[in-house]
Amino acid sequence: MRDSPWTWTPGDSPGDFELRGDLTVAGQPVPLRLGGRAWGTLNRERDNAVLVCHHYTGTMRAAGLNPDGTPGWWDALIGPGRALDTDRFYVACLNTPGNVQVRDPEVVTTGPATPHPDGHPWGERFPAWTMADLHGAQCGLLRALHAPRWHAVVGPSFGGMQALQWAARTPALAPRVAAVVSSPVAGPVLRGVFGPLLHAAAQGDPDAALHETLRLITFFGLGADGVDLLFRDADVDAYLRTRTATADLRHVLDIGRAVQTHDLLEVAPLDDLCRHWREQGTRLLSVNVRGDQFFPAAEMRDFAAQTQAAGVAHTHLEFDSPRGHLGGLADTAAFEDALRELLGTAPMPPALDAAEVRHV
Amino acid sequence: MRDSPWTWTPGDSPGDFELRGDLTVAGQPVPLRLGGRAWGTLNRERDNAVLVCHHYTGTMRAAGLNPDGTPGWWDALIGPGRALDTDRFYVACLNTPGNVQVRDPEVVTTGPATPHPDGHPWGERFPAWTMADLHGAQCGLLRALHAPRWHAVVGPSFGGMQALQWAARTPALAPRVAAVVSSPVAGPVLRGVFGPLLHAAAQGDPDAALHETLRLITFFGLGADGVDLLFRDADVDAYLRTRTATADLRHVLDIGRAVQTHDLLEVAPLDDLCRHWREQGTRLLSVNVRGDQFFPAAEMRDFAAQTQAAGVAHTHLEFDSPRGHLGGLADTAAFEDALRELLGTAPMPPALDAAEVRHV
Repeated sequence: MRDSPWTWTPGDSPGDFELRGDLTVAGQPVPLRLGGRAWGTLNRERDNAVLVCHHYTGTMRAAGLNPDGTPGWWDALIGPGRALDTDRFYVACLNTPGNVQVRDPEVVTTGPATPHPDGHPWGERFPAWTMADLHGAQCGLLRALHAPRWHAVVGPSFGGMQALQWAARTPALAPRVAAVVSSPVAGPVLRGVFGPLLHAAAQGDPDAALHETLRLITFFGLGADGVDLLFRDADVDAYLRTRTATADLRHVLDIGRAVQTHDLLEVAPLDDLCRHWREQGTRLLSVNVRGDQFFPAAEMRDFAAQTQAAGVAHTHLEFDSPRGHLGGLADTAAFEDALRELLGTAPMPPALDAAEVRHV
Repeated sequence: MRDSPWTWTPGDSPGDFELRGDLTVAGQPVPLRLGGRAWGTLNRERDNAVLVCHHYTGTMRAAGLNPDGTPGWWDALIGPGRALDTDRFYVACLNTPGNVQVRDPEVVTTGPATPHPDGHPWGERFPAWTMADLHGAQCGLLRALHAPRWHAVVGPSFGGMQALQWAARTPALAPRVAAVVSSPVAGPVLRGVFGPLLHAAAQGDPDAALHETLRLITFFGLGADGVDLLFRDADVDAYLRTRTATADLRHVLDIGRAVQTHDLLEVAPLDDLCRHWREQGTRLLSVNVRGDQFFPAAEMRDFAAQTQAAGVAHTHLEFDSPRGHLGGLADTAAFEDALRELLGTAPMPPALDAAEVRHV
């Protein structure tokens, strides 16, 4: 937790807001402007705020309509009567630093491609922030809202990593956490395969490199079956050209690097994590897609087996999707009931005694 | 079929042989030396020869022991009493042009990294051969053996593509064909994703580029679940260094390009393929792994449904493997009975009337 001031100001459109503050990385303050969007109303107690964290190539447009008329990436889950019920909750989604869609006119973010206070792009001066720093910026949002804690922190993929970081770092501020198509750690697939291939794809002329990095992300996102399903009669490259229009290579690499710093066991040993969760009565929900090429389901399944054995209220679901990892965005019906239930429950009563639970 | 002479000469070790001849590409003869290895004995009628075609990074060492003491890549299928029974069949495996393992002292191949007749490497002068040319070279082996036809042509992955090319191009010479973890066409995954990413990974300093291309191939080979299974406690890069020792980047790209020319429907329209297979009594066996990242099972499943509907004797199997695509090498027990049955059956009696079959 950092004590620099963060300011929240409403934007031009209803629901839009902007968060300003300093991200302090390695002792150096980095002034950030991060755009966000919210749905529903913050209640008088300010205890009904839900933080939705976005995926790698996502933005604050979790719900509502995109400029091209398509729905937001979790629109099926967010709205009146939906799992993230905006009649009941204030649901906020904040762009990350280095947001990939930095050339999207609606997206406000700060990263290597945006101007430094000296007017030139940050470029390589933009610091190598980690998941801890991102959690710090999101803490800034919580404070700027004058909310005592989140009702829940949820998200898919990179967003699920962020939600888990909340559970690990500040369980008192995140009593309910849902991580969809995500993992407790950037494992061998992300660190040993995706990360190096991303850098290999980023070689050469920047326009081609952006195209190739998005090709890699698309493949990991869909898996071979998803690519075969969607592109047997369509052109992969034509699709990728629609994706490169608003993205920037430096931001693709910035998020790619940050994602690889995710490791809950570097936040705290498993025993400590489980003890905190029991003491706080934290409820965890994890949902994975079988055959996901970014996040092997076994990573979360094994982690859930360990937390459950340690007495943590951790529900783990798995489902099949023809779109692989992207099933976490496209096939929300598979887990909307679980999410609704998570948000509707009281936090677990704290465990009486850690040692007792551990030896049941 | 080309009419240049091909010569077969035994090598220093039992079972080793070398095929020499000209691969004629776009009218230009390219002198080839291709090493091979065989098990079992060619009978007096010379009608018991089985051609085993190797996968992308494979060599003629389909059976027996590798120099490091590990078994050949289909050793579990090839030997006395095994599915490819060497008491009954003469089983031959031939290196492809541009074999990836060109720096392996036992491997004999001709490609961009090997000497041109002028003494310098072929380099970019080595022609862009296709699956049709590879089929031509393998026809050279059949003729050099003075065999009237293959008893069967079989193989996994790229080897399965080759087997299918035999079925499509010269069904009279390949009455039984098995394609394992393969596809009737290099589809959107190979052409729209793997191929471009392979070229992106090949940018930069050649040693690093070879490492990155093998990283990509390894990922497609294992899938995320396989990578997670094998590398959660092991170093991907240390493994890749053991793979780069005998490989050459130019050959990785040479085979990568050739693979992408595979399309049975460019050999002949589906109706013609099915008619030839019915007329010749061809038996086809296809086996795929669910979740394979190189060859989506749906491609072959849909093709098999079409050939079966057209009266072709086509058996299609699918199975799960924790190693994804590499299950086609590692989990041979899943299909050894089907392969044994294929090799033990007589060719189908030819269909009496194509039109009649088509309208059943």
